[in-house]
Amino acid sequence: MAEKKKVEAITGRDEDFAKWYTDIVKKAELIEYTSVKGCMVIRPYGYAIWENIQRILDGMFKATGHENVCMPMFIPESLLQKEKDHVEGFAPEVAWVTMGGNEVLEDRLCVRPTSETLFCEHYANIIHSYRDLPKLYNQWVSVVRWEKTTRPFLRSREFLWQEGHTVHATAEEAIAETEKMLDIYADFCEKSLCIPVVKGKKTESDKFAGAVSTYCIEALMHDGKALQAGTSHFFGDGFAKAFDITYTDKENRKVYPFQTSWGVTTRLIGAIIMTHGDDNGLVLPPAVAPVQVVIIPVAQHKEGVLERCRELADTLKARFRVKLDESENSAGWKFAEYEMKGVPLRIELGPRDIENGQCVACLRCNGEKSVLPLEGIEDAVAEKLAEAERLMLAAATENRDRRTYACRSLDEITHCLAEHGDGFIKAMWCGDEACEDAVKEKTGVCSRCIPFEQEQIDTKCVCCGKEAKAMVYWGKAY
Amino acid sequence: MAEKKKVEAITGRDEDFAKWYTDIVKKAELIEYTSVKGCMVIRPYGYAIWENIQRILDGMFKATGHENVCMPMFIPESLLQKEKDHVEGFAPEVAWVTMGGNEVLEDRLCVRPTSETLFCEHYANIIHSYRDLPKLYNQWVSVVRWEKTTRPFLRSREFLWQEGHTVHATAEEAIAETEKMLDIYADFCEKSLCIPVVKGKKTESDKFAGAVSTYCIEALMHDGKALQAGTSHFFGDGFAKAFDITYTDKENRKVYPFQTSWGVTTRLIGAIIMTHGDDNGLVLPPAVAPVQVVIIPVAQHKEGVLERCRELADTLKARFRVKLDESENSAGWKFAEYEMKGVPLRIELGPRDIENGQCVACLRCNGEKSVLPLEGIEDAVAEKLAEAERLMLAAATENRDRRTYACRSLDEITHCLAEHGDGFIKAMWCGDEACEDAVKEKTGVCSRCIPFEQEQIDTKCVCCGKEAKAMVYWGKAY
Repeated sequence: MAEKKKVEAITGRDEDFAKWYTDIVKKAELIEYTSVKGCMVIRPYGYAIWENIQRILDGMFKATGHENVCMPMFIPESLLQKEKDHVEGFAPEVAWVTMGGNEVLEDRLCVRPTSETLFCEHYANIIHSYRDLPKLYNQWVSVVRWEKTTRPFLRSREFLWQEGHTVHATAEEAIAETEKMLDIYADFCEKSLCIPVVKGKKTESDKFAGAVSTYCIEALMHDGKALQAGTSHFFGDGFAKAFDITYTDKENRKVYPFQTSWGVTTRLIGAIIMTHGDDNGLVLPPAVAPVQVVIIPVAQHKEGVLERCRELADTLKARFRVKLDESENSAGWKFAEYEMKGVPLRIELGPRDIENGQCVACLRCNGEKSVLPLEGIEDAVAEKLAEAERLMLAAATENRDRRTYACRSLDEITHCLAEHGDGFIKAMWCGDEACEDAVKEKTGVCSRCIPFEQEQIDTKCVCCGKEAKAMVYWGKAY
Repeated sequence: MAEKKKVEAITGRDEDFAKWYTDIVKKAELIEYTSVKGCMVIRPYGYAIWENIQRILDGMFKATGHENVCMPMFIPESLLQKEKDHVEGFAPEVAWVTMGGNEVLEDRLCVRPTSETLFCEHYANIIHSYRDLPKLYNQWVSVVRWEKTTRPFLRSREFLWQEGHTVHATAEEAIAETEKMLDIYADFCEKSLCIPVVKGKKTESDKFAGAVSTYCIEALMHDGKALQAGTSHFFGDGFAKAFDITYTDKENRKVYPFQTSWGVTTRLIGAIIMTHGDDNGLVLPPAVAPVQVVIIPVAQHKEGVLERCRELADTLKARFRVKLDESENSAGWKFAEYEMKGVPLRIELGPRDIENGQCVACLRCNGEKSVLPLEGIEDAVAEKLAEAERLMLAAATENRDRRTYACRSLDEITHCLAEHGDGFIKAMWCGDEACEDAVKEKTGVCSRCIPFEQEQIDTKCVCCGKEAKAMVYWGKAY
């Protein structure tokens, strides 16, 4: 059977992590390559994961008062240039539309790499009074950045994301928003994706083009490399000044408001793969799995087996995303197939099970089997999925903590990486950009974030030995 | 109060329909213009309508076995050129990306005007056997067509839509899919948007670039102009041949499959406005209204009024999208504001109502008031919204039928339009393109569709007098 080969062909995770990753995205049918360089097709199974991510996050955004809008995908060059730092950061990596039909455009248009400039232009039009504030907008769109080297979900020329853009009367309110959205991202990653994250602030050299400060959540992948899973930016009133967004406050003064933006992308799917996947394929967190429970009939030709399986599927469908595989493929092939697809719970049901009023349940995340009574099966399945979430978060946390090392010198960092492989390095920093650069140059790890939860590992900078200002997480990043 | 002026400033619908339309899209805060020519911001209230349209249609698509995917937004010029008719139809109106970063692209990329070519390339990669069929894919994205003159929702350089693309083993199956999706569109328009539509087939000259046949639904706006509200195309195996999509059938022969595509766009929002709107603003169908019920406290400073209104809002929120306006604005201002916004049902609740255990309900679509007991209010509200749907569909159907005229000669068409204004003209046609062109040139109406429900108005072509092959709907179109 052609499909069976697929499952056999996967590269071992610890043998070649990069190849293992590519095998999974292809063989679990998440993406397919196209003739559009650096762009991909997100296939139904991959897109269904994104739809679940969208649904949950969108609910969290709306529950906190945010509204969705839709901006144009094009930004005139003249508009992009209004905020100096912003254009410097993005202009080198945008795609330019220079012709519409047969007409050469006077002001060429870039395909949005991000939409601060469009939101600002709009806000300048619609914000007049303190009564118009706050504005809490978000949009779900795709953006384009002309990357040189690309990898599915992790770095591609076009990717899907959401971008929140908000406007507030005071800096305090805007900072509170920046922090609130970072908390929402962190909660979502931990609760829905079973990925533990470190919350912190980017260093000056690493912040968003045009931001006063950038907050981020950083996760550690199975191979010890770091992945930025979400960012939230405080803009101060810089964009407002550049775009002339003003409002009349309660004292009838014309003043500038304060802004934020925040986003997560389809890169989260890459994070799921690299946090939870194993040698048998994907392992999906129940909250975002397109199929949460797969039912495999055992000896399905025997009388009554398929009927009972269908009944079970109908019962479970009211509460879960369920698939019953009635195909002619062998049970063994089906096991391998849904393991590759990362379905959190497999239920096997055969003639003997039916006789005994039970079924066999197997968790994808640890392969453990248990026998569940068919009576009250919904609650038992819910408990199994909750167990999967606990186990997956615990395993990911264990991996991260095991690969997090406190270091007190550059030599210690180098030795630590050589001995243990990649991971998070916790080390003190004086706050000087020259030291940040030197750490990277000499050890290969770059600053990931200044975590909110600080530890006093040492009193001196790991690089220059001067007084340390903060503990920083360092790592090699995707 | 600034907002009050807005409501007063709206142009009369029968005075200047085009200006009335533009007033509504601006004043109901559906869109805002941008510095990107021909593109618009869809504001929260407008986007929420689209989200409701998406949610309902997406459910209908999924219930009929369709899956969502996401294709790149770019199409290499070489790929676009593979199907001759298709490229001829679209190339003149696409936007071209010629630079990525600072690099000039060898094969320039167009921003997708539609995605047949990308789907075909993908299908060629993933379809091998009859077991891989059918493929029933859809995507929700935006597309770009470089239009010269644009109007919000009706014609813009970028617009939102869904595009279904399916592949089938046989022509019969593909045709059945084309018809099924047209039926879904028609059902959606009638049941969810309260817009009656005529189902039919486009003439040869009017079909989609690359299609064997194009089916469509045509609606008549309040001003008597026609609007194409959705299309569904049967491609035969033309695209399969151009893109070398083949599969091995059960007899082990390599054969070409058959394809379809189908789509509706944000233009549906324009159809809602122009079908149901009136001199007081928008009138929204309950199924897609962002707010279905607005509660206006009367004498809200009086003790207990706000509390009781909040209770009522909480009760209704379990089943409806509800807004309680507690602002300091006058009740009169609020009435006008939510009429402009087209909220289907207004509930007024004041001290006397509370005493009597009742509230006043006012339907947006006809302005009629009724008194509803607070006990069992959910069912009464559901009944009122259902009544609104019936009334809105009936009024729209009445308008369409009143403006539909059977004509037997070109003179009759001309006189009919002069006497009654725009509308649908039903007239016989010989099937000759020269007659189709002549009708347009001499009377100003173009063929809208050959309806599935045929009537024998005459035996002769309205233009040349030769034997008629079909009755055609003609009209002036948006």
